[in-house]
Amino acid sequence: MTSEVSPALLVDLYELTMADAYRQEGIADRRATFSLFVRSLPPEWGYLVAAGLEDCLSWLQGLHFTPSDLAAIDQFKIFPPDFLDWLAKLRFTGSVRAVPEGSIVFAGEPLLEVEGPIAEAQLAETYLLNQMTLQTTLATEAARCRHAAQGRAVMDFALRRVPGTDAGMKLARCCRLVGLGGTSNVAGAVRYGLAPSGTMAHSFVQAHADEMDAFRAYAQVFKEATVLLVDTYDTPRGIERAIQVAGEMRAKGIELHGVRLDSGDLGPLAALARRRLDEAEFPAMTVFVSGGLDEYKIDDLVERQKAPIDGFGVGTSLGAAGGAPTLDSVYKLVNFDDRPVRKTSTGKATWPGAKQVWRRTDWTGDLMALAGETSPDDSYTALLEPVMHSGLPTSRGKRDLVEANTLFERQWLALPGPLKRLRTPALHSVEPSAALRRLTAAMDAGRPGAVEADPKSRPPS
Amino acid sequence: MTSEVSPALLVDLYELTMADAYRQEGIADRRATFSLFVRSLPPEWGYLVAAGLEDCLSWLQGLHFTPSDLAAIDQFKIFPPDFLDWLAKLRFTGSVRAVPEGSIVFAGEPLLEVEGPIAEAQLAETYLLNQMTLQTTLATEAARCRHAAQGRAVMDFALRRVPGTDAGMKLARCCRLVGLGGTSNVAGAVRYGLAPSGTMAHSFVQAHADEMDAFRAYAQVFKEATVLLVDTYDTPRGIERAIQVAGEMRAKGIELHGVRLDSGDLGPLAALARRRLDEAEFPAMTVFVSGGLDEYKIDDLVERQKAPIDGFGVGTSLGAAGGAPTLDSVYKLVNFDDRPVRKTSTGKATWPGAKQVWRRTDWTGDLMALAGETSPDDSYTALLEPVMHSGLPTSRGKRDLVEANTLFERQWLALPGPLKRLRTPALHSVEPSAALRRLTAAMDAGRPGAVEADPKSRPPS
Repeated sequence: MTSEVSPALLVDLYELTMADAYRQEGIADRRATFSLFVRSLPPEWGYLVAAGLEDCLSWLQGLHFTPSDLAAIDQFKIFPPDFLDWLAKLRFTGSVRAVPEGSIVFAGEPLLEVEGPIAEAQLAETYLLNQMTLQTTLATEAARCRHAAQGRAVMDFALRRVPGTDAGMKLARCCRLVGLGGTSNVAGAVRYGLAPSGTMAHSFVQAHADEMDAFRAYAQVFKEATVLLVDTYDTPRGIERAIQVAGEMRAKGIELHGVRLDSGDLGPLAALARRRLDEAEFPAMTVFVSGGLDEYKIDDLVERQKAPIDGFGVGTSLGAAGGAPTLDSVYKLVNFDDRPVRKTSTGKATWPGAKQVWRRTDWTGDLMALAGETSPDDSYTALLEPVMHSGLPTSRGKRDLVEANTLFERQWLALPGPLKRLRTPALHSVEPSAALRRLTAAMDAGRPGAVEADPKSRPPS
Repeated sequence: MTSEVSPALLVDLYELTMADAYRQEGIADRRATFSLFVRSLPPEWGYLVAAGLEDCLSWLQGLHFTPSDLAAIDQFKIFPPDFLDWLAKLRFTGSVRAVPEGSIVFAGEPLLEVEGPIAEAQLAETYLLNQMTLQTTLATEAARCRHAAQGRAVMDFALRRVPGTDAGMKLARCCRLVGLGGTSNVAGAVRYGLAPSGTMAHSFVQAHADEMDAFRAYAQVFKEATVLLVDTYDTPRGIERAIQVAGEMRAKGIELHGVRLDSGDLGPLAALARRRLDEAEFPAMTVFVSGGLDEYKIDDLVERQKAPIDGFGVGTSLGAAGGAPTLDSVYKLVNFDDRPVRKTSTGKATWPGAKQVWRRTDWTGDLMALAGETSPDDSYTALLEPVMHSGLPTSRGKRDLVEANTLFERQWLALPGPLKRLRTPALHSVEPSAALRRLTAAMDAGRPGAVEADPKSRPPS
């Protein structure tokens, strides 16, 4: 294994060049607000499950450049020595408001907003986007698989296919967040308190003289926990052999757990397995399937084929490596030096100002308002809450994964069915408040897209 | 940041359950060979660039379960105490043969083969697949972008969008491997010796009274290294302002580096920027573009539009998060207890036995042979070489990234153009040797798919 990366170096070079420019201009401490949001949802996605905040707050709280970090940056020969001195003292002293992890959010709504000295808040862009994008994608994809399975167990089998070990760990975390059934990832199960899940590989069957020997050997060791993989050579024959071994074990007072199918036409094969297990008087043995599954295939098996499947193991698709879409997430400056800012580039215009999102408690729509606005009326609740103040997490910034899961479960129960649909979901209404519209219009009427000219924000000449 | 993951726990649970079953059967030490390969290439990909071996060898060499790992596994209440004792003593004692990193390989060809006691070799499956799949995907995608750019610089701007920090680091590594121009990822530049790359963000322009102020402030600090981002408000106007600031700096004896376009119709805008820079007598200033690029868009700009672009910054697509396809990689048992093994599941059949790949030096085809076969004739060279022996890397297993890049450059130069094509590439011929075909036929004629029944491979009863 390569050694651990210094967290502070997980930044894009331009965060450093801008910080130095701000410093040399003498404006590095001017206050700024950045808003992190997803511009538009992938075509078939009706919602997002916000995730990643805990790692972002930890990164901000721990932000510092070590002597070896500074020596490495010095090697670039880009920066003057006084910038390195400045970096050595740098800590994150700003504040963060965010939607709690596990919250359901929609396009354009801030997942979090960072307020602080511009050089500090800018520096956080890369890591915050990296983690919020990754974890929100993984949590949403996992929630979609859970929805497709309609109460059947869904297990994370993706560690081998997820892009890298960080994504593998964060996937296990997100599976815990959205209440999936378990994970094959031992480290993920350990760290995030998810049930460990797994049975045997085809290689185990191949390493035995024949399939029966493999089944007997495995059942002998794992007894009631045994799930036999029946598709290594010929699935119908594998099912019969599993039934035979289950009978042998029953004679010893042991009831096997089930069978797993990992290839072929899963619906009919699951039906065959179910019928044969029932006929052989093993109605309690479960049928577990895996192999190239995603939310659409799970939905097809459950909803259209009514396949008698008890659980799904999902790999590639849950790992978001090609299965799930890329989120169009951005981290945009919305306030600088107490003035709202907006960008007007074609197709990339942003709403100005720090925001609050108000959600109607009956889920009929959200209102995107300026952060200073009060609740429109008591049919609304606010989504963003203070999670970090002057560089330290607030009590709300210390929610653990169990609390986040509880919050998710509550919102998941309330989330209207049309928004949960796997294809062509309903569009949730997110309206700007009157004040946000007025501010934007006033800015556009003045000097389009720019902060109003203001002598105090000019660089010293 | 969450604390470092214990590497040994980056396994799927079933690696542990199988290890315990093998142990209880008394066959955990029987020798096995597993072959890691990619079953088929993504539709538009003509080749793969092998990558990830260094991390795999490090993982194997460092493999051990710490007392806290064992305590965590014990919490699962799945395993008996003597299995934990066995795990505590476990080290990887096997051997690895592999194609060197940076090698061009094709579908079905082993990237690496692990030979050793079956429980050890099986345990490595998850981590090896995770890293080889990730890094081979990233290296290949980076090579495709390099090919599309036809000698122009390609920079990795993906850290914010790559799925997690491990993938971000490995991307920088793979960019170094295939000779890309630089990375925005500071940690990646530091660790892998890639040039750090980056300029300014839109937020920097927005944080100034107007665009001119921002350009002047940045140029004042970064002088000859300055690349001005000209699309925050209105690109043609941004280009004129960049020219004006370039003129002001020239009056001070400083020549700016260039401009960057990050939105809009990049081809015509680059042509406009080039024309205006030339007219204003800044022919040495470069035009750099970014924003939603992938190999196809780069190819369109370079090959079809002949856009006068000097460099490309690539984000999402290079990060493989939805941009690049998932590789259909597998880790299959091919030998057990000195006997070849193959799997015959529908659509998932594998060639038996440990392999060597022989490549014709004129790239007219590869021969997939059994590992014991000698060179067909001297027009062939062998691709797999011993990189680890009895748990320790050989001299060939200690190649560094610079050597791997040298090897890549040599193969890249030789790789025929039709295989490099971005769309509908030629199909490289990979033929099984006569001996491999004979072995497979003999196995199928005997007992389809299974190891021949052999009393010594039966579990003790």
